[in-house]
Amino acid sequence: MPMLGPNCLGVMDPRSRIDTMFLPTYKLSRPNVGYVSFVSQSGAVGSTILDLIAGEGFGLSKFISYGNAAYVDESDILEYLMDDDDTKVIIMYIEGIKDGKKFIDVAKRITKKKPVVILKGGRTALGQAAAHSHTASLAGDYEVYEGVFEQFGFTIANDITDLLYYTKALVSEPEPKGNRIAIITNGGGAGVLTTDAVGSASNLKMAELSPQSKTILSKSMPPLVNIRIPLDLAGDAGGDRYETAVSVLKDDKNVDMLIVITLFQTPGADSSVVAKLVHFKEYMDKPMIVISIGAEYTSVHASMMESAGLPVYDSPSAAVRSLSELFKYYQYKNGK
Amino acid sequence: MPMLGPNCLGVMDPRSRIDTMFLPTYKLSRPNVGYVSFVSQSGAVGSTILDLIAGEGFGLSKFISYGNAAYVDESDILEYLMDDDDTKVIIMYIEGIKDGKKFIDVAKRITKKKPVVILKGGRTALGQAAAHSHTASLAGDYEVYEGVFEQFGFTIANDITDLLYYTKALVSEPEPKGNRIAIITNGGGAGVLTTDAVGSASNLKMAELSPQSKTILSKSMPPLVNIRIPLDLAGDAGGDRYETAVSVLKDDKNVDMLIVITLFQTPGADSSVVAKLVHFKEYMDKPMIVISIGAEYTSVHASMMESAGLPVYDSPSAAVRSLSELFKYYQYKNGK
Repeated sequence: MPMLGPNCLGVMDPRSRIDTMFLPTYKLSRPNVGYVSFVSQSGAVGSTILDLIAGEGFGLSKFISYGNAAYVDESDILEYLMDDDDTKVIIMYIEGIKDGKKFIDVAKRITKKKPVVILKGGRTALGQAAAHSHTASLAGDYEVYEGVFEQFGFTIANDITDLLYYTKALVSEPEPKGNRIAIITNGGGAGVLTTDAVGSASNLKMAELSPQSKTILSKSMPPLVNIRIPLDLAGDAGGDRYETAVSVLKDDKNVDMLIVITLFQTPGADSSVVAKLVHFKEYMDKPMIVISIGAEYTSVHASMMESAGLPVYDSPSAAVRSLSELFKYYQYKNGK
Repeated sequence: MPMLGPNCLGVMDPRSRIDTMFLPTYKLSRPNVGYVSFVSQSGAVGSTILDLIAGEGFGLSKFISYGNAAYVDESDILEYLMDDDDTKVIIMYIEGIKDGKKFIDVAKRITKKKPVVILKGGRTALGQAAAHSHTASLAGDYEVYEGVFEQFGFTIANDITDLLYYTKALVSEPEPKGNRIAIITNGGGAGVLTTDAVGSASNLKMAELSPQSKTILSKSMPPLVNIRIPLDLAGDAGGDRYETAVSVLKDDKNVDMLIVITLFQTPGADSSVVAKLVHFKEYMDKPMIVISIGAEYTSVHASMMESAGLPVYDSPSAAVRSLSELFKYYQYKNGK
């Protein structure tokens, strides 16, 4: 696996169809072409994340695996990606930073242009020792790294799963105008769990329906639907009820971001829900993400939504944390 | 959906083939028969989790959806499951507790017999209001609930994903003799991230190899393998190298629990690794879990391992948190 080892620069640019990964496609799926570039100091973590990205709705622009940074380091790569028009979001896996001053110089500028989602290996004393043995990185005190990442508006992930969760919100969603979240659901308990997640996010609030929205929804919803947030459309809700709910909330000035929960185990939910949500996504100017949890029938519908650019999350807390990071990034970018 | 609504008791016992779920099997997969029983106050969350369990390696004994607990409450159900020989682990989703004294009475006794993994809706003030609107539960102050759950050795999950992660370790793994974790990996970065997760878990430690293990491993491993924990078998490791590593570590008195990372994107990893690990699992007396992250090729191999009773995790932190909860449960059970 020479291109993935230390001292080597593995590059995969699906746009120009250059693929220098020495790994068979049946073992490692190749992502679609898209607008995320991924920089990894670890070959195996790199290929694992690449494989995961292949299952996500968003595509990849460039993948750069740079090992122990003998010729080119992480700052050189960021400098390049900063001005690359095909890169809208950057994902990084690093174990150490080669030249702190050089990194800070590019860090200051890059996040004002585009989001950088970063996962650092060696966040604990035990992990630092392991990182030193792996990439010879002097991983250093994580508090210092974390301070730098925070100061310069990096989106910090603590696990591979969070890296992808945050990325898919950042690459597909528009800038939120505020932090008030509305939840639409077809299951009460899932609404409660998602509300708990909003309640636990320090920078988000629950939206309250405007009087106008209340009036329209009261008239158009069946009597069993309680007109409040979370808006529980009940287990028999199909595409039409979701359509009404989203069309009202997308124009409600009290709502900044929308979380739509679609539990496909319920009697009413089927591909009509997918069709309506995807349709709205095309001209929506507020962030809208979906939570959908389940086995095969759910996966099929989740994939349809993701291919249409609508991010789908498999857990309430992951969805809410992703919107929290989205909001945080734009607060930083706008100097707030 | 009458059996899932409030006031109704939905029961599914796959052993006796009783299925009172009024939901088609194409929408909601039915789990295999097994030793986990699941109690849910919410119909939709219940069916969502049921659908997820169908995708897990462990099977289900009973599913009980009890809504707003008009006739039978959560304590009655726990009382029944406590003495049910077909139930080894209990999963609960609740929004409130009907009778606190009655609950504490059964809570005191049940976790001395078997683990109860609990997810409560309404953990925040916002979530409590949503729960009240959903199941009329007076969700109350979560600190009080949490205090009771902690005091009586419940395994607390904060999300649906954690509920399943913890359950699969508790139902398949033996009691750990101590808290020292050994990590075997075929990717350095994944080893670093897993080590970080161990470093972040307050009740776990990294194992150090015994001198005897060091000697055997030094002789039997190729020179590129560093003889330390995490034990990085390198990207060309196949079944044989995993076999050597596990056979040494399973007998090492300094090792209490094993995490085996198998990244199937690497050149060496294939179904030979699965065959060896599954074989060990049959007569292993220490907890051993797997981390395997990736798309199709990975999923196929992960499913093979899970069907053989070897729990597979898709993230380092989920795997480590699950062992942390496993250790914590047995500490409680043994009165430590």
